[in-house]
Amino acid sequence: MIRIGYLGPRGTFTEQAVRTYVAKRGIKNAVLVACRTIDEVLLSVEAGELQIGVVPAENSIEGSVALTLDYLVHEVDVPIVGEVIIAVRHNLLALPGADPTEMVAVYSHPHALAQCRRHLNEILPGAELCPASSTAEAARIVRDKADARLAALGTELAAELYDLEVMARDLQDEKGNATRFFVVADQRPSATGYDKTSIAFAFPDDRPGHLYRALYEFASRDINLSKLESRPARRHLGEYIFLADMEGHVDDEKVAQALEGLRHQCSFVRVLGSYPRDTLSAIP
Amino acid sequence: MIRIGYLGPRGTFTEQAVRTYVAKRGIKNAVLVACRTIDEVLLSVEAGELQIGVVPAENSIEGSVALTLDYLVHEVDVPIVGEVIIAVRHNLLALPGADPTEMVAVYSHPHALAQCRRHLNEILPGAELCPASSTAEAARIVRDKADARLAALGTELAAELYDLEVMARDLQDEKGNATRFFVVADQRPSATGYDKTSIAFAFPDDRPGHLYRALYEFASRDINLSKLESRPARRHLGEYIFLADMEGHVDDEKVAQALEGLRHQCSFVRVLGSYPRDTLSAIP
Repeated sequence: MIRIGYLGPRGTFTEQAVRTYVAKRGIKNAVLVACRTIDEVLLSVEAGELQIGVVPAENSIEGSVALTLDYLVHEVDVPIVGEVIIAVRHNLLALPGADPTEMVAVYSHPHALAQCRRHLNEILPGAELCPASSTAEAARIVRDKADARLAALGTELAAELYDLEVMARDLQDEKGNATRFFVVADQRPSATGYDKTSIAFAFPDDRPGHLYRALYEFASRDINLSKLESRPARRHLGEYIFLADMEGHVDDEKVAQALEGLRHQCSFVRVLGSYPRDTLSAIP
Repeated sequence: MIRIGYLGPRGTFTEQAVRTYVAKRGIKNAVLVACRTIDEVLLSVEAGELQIGVVPAENSIEGSVALTLDYLVHEVDVPIVGEVIIAVRHNLLALPGADPTEMVAVYSHPHALAQCRRHLNEILPGAELCPASSTAEAARIVRDKADARLAALGTELAAELYDLEVMARDLQDEKGNATRFFVVADQRPSATGYDKTSIAFAFPDDRPGHLYRALYEFASRDINLSKLESRPARRHLGEYIFLADMEGHVDDEKVAQALEGLRHQCSFVRVLGSYPRDTLSAIP
């Protein structure tokens, strides 16, 4: 029995990511555990109460999920062992038989509401947009209020869980919207030849040229950085730590050398994990 | 009469930022206009309906405000003419005379709830955390429900506006929490000698070393980048555009030369603005 925790509640995009991961890896005996918060997932994996954890990392519109990155960098010692990338599709959910043109309010997570704003303006111009703590919670609210003039933006999975009907599909304004999830576990996957390594690093002061010299370690070895981002160091605005993803595995000679070079320049270097690269999965 | 628009509703941190800016600049005849969305602020300034706009740009915990940056880079042509940095202080607001230990629910923006989670767990362990679309909206909900067991996390300004009392101050778990706002207007401020320039740039492909060579333009001229961040290019996850803040003004010789060098390497370079640097302002 493999206990896999994820950011709940049930029926969110994170549950879809977990299901995608379980299917792709052919994991048998998986038991899915919906956790209340991102830190609960990560701390439970660290404590050994869960074997695997899945948390959102980055969305193509909203950017990085601050809490996940901050926790992985500062608070827990569990490596990233995989990534899952899924397309984000927001559907309009309502009570079965409801008339989609009669909706007076739409519930969802503020990000989902923002991502569908233009579409909602067109199809439901007068509807009030009501924030909920997750897309699945929005579906639950609509089911519980049992009012046919209320809708939620959520996943197909949420429609199934809360006995709602999908009134309209793909309401997201940006069609390329995708979310990347991190899979964490107490193991370090060996190199597959098609890997990615995530690191965090910081400099001892903010003199010009630090980052330039740091990137030399990668550029000179022809290592592609697939992502580079500065995050506030949580002390005060203006101090940053850098997060980078690179192609390759820490066991690859040139990646190991680049990291060694980086350590000479930085006050802090942390490898968050080396793991097989994922490509966008269609949601079943 | 100078019409200054900001991300409303009234009583949020953005209104505090506007008031700080107006006071610091000694602007007379300012008329404050609360707008519904970030894009409404920016589009109204572009259309000349507002003379100045103020929108959130970055928080030391949550990171960048995606919508603001995406709009300034892709959708509007209004320069950043200033920045305002203020400390974020979350206060517990409730009906006058309410007993803070009796609270059963706390309303606020999901970010505020997340930023006070540890504190709320200690002082109100059983209280339900209820998302609202802004901290000010949370205060309005508590006033309208007129239930002494409900509280909101919000500003002092919101307490005044909605006839609530401040039950406890400074509930944010991270004491260094600060938010940076951009001020936009249809003008280009001249150099003061203590300026910052914000730019966006992108490369024609994702070959290794692009960013390294781009940063050479700054490092070789001793120009400090105070911020560097990759943002999804809104097409698909994995394509990035870079946002950088540097010390100096576009009219400074070495900044102009660095930008010229950058233009030779990039498929896209956009100067978002050169403006006087701000330091953290205490909230009145």
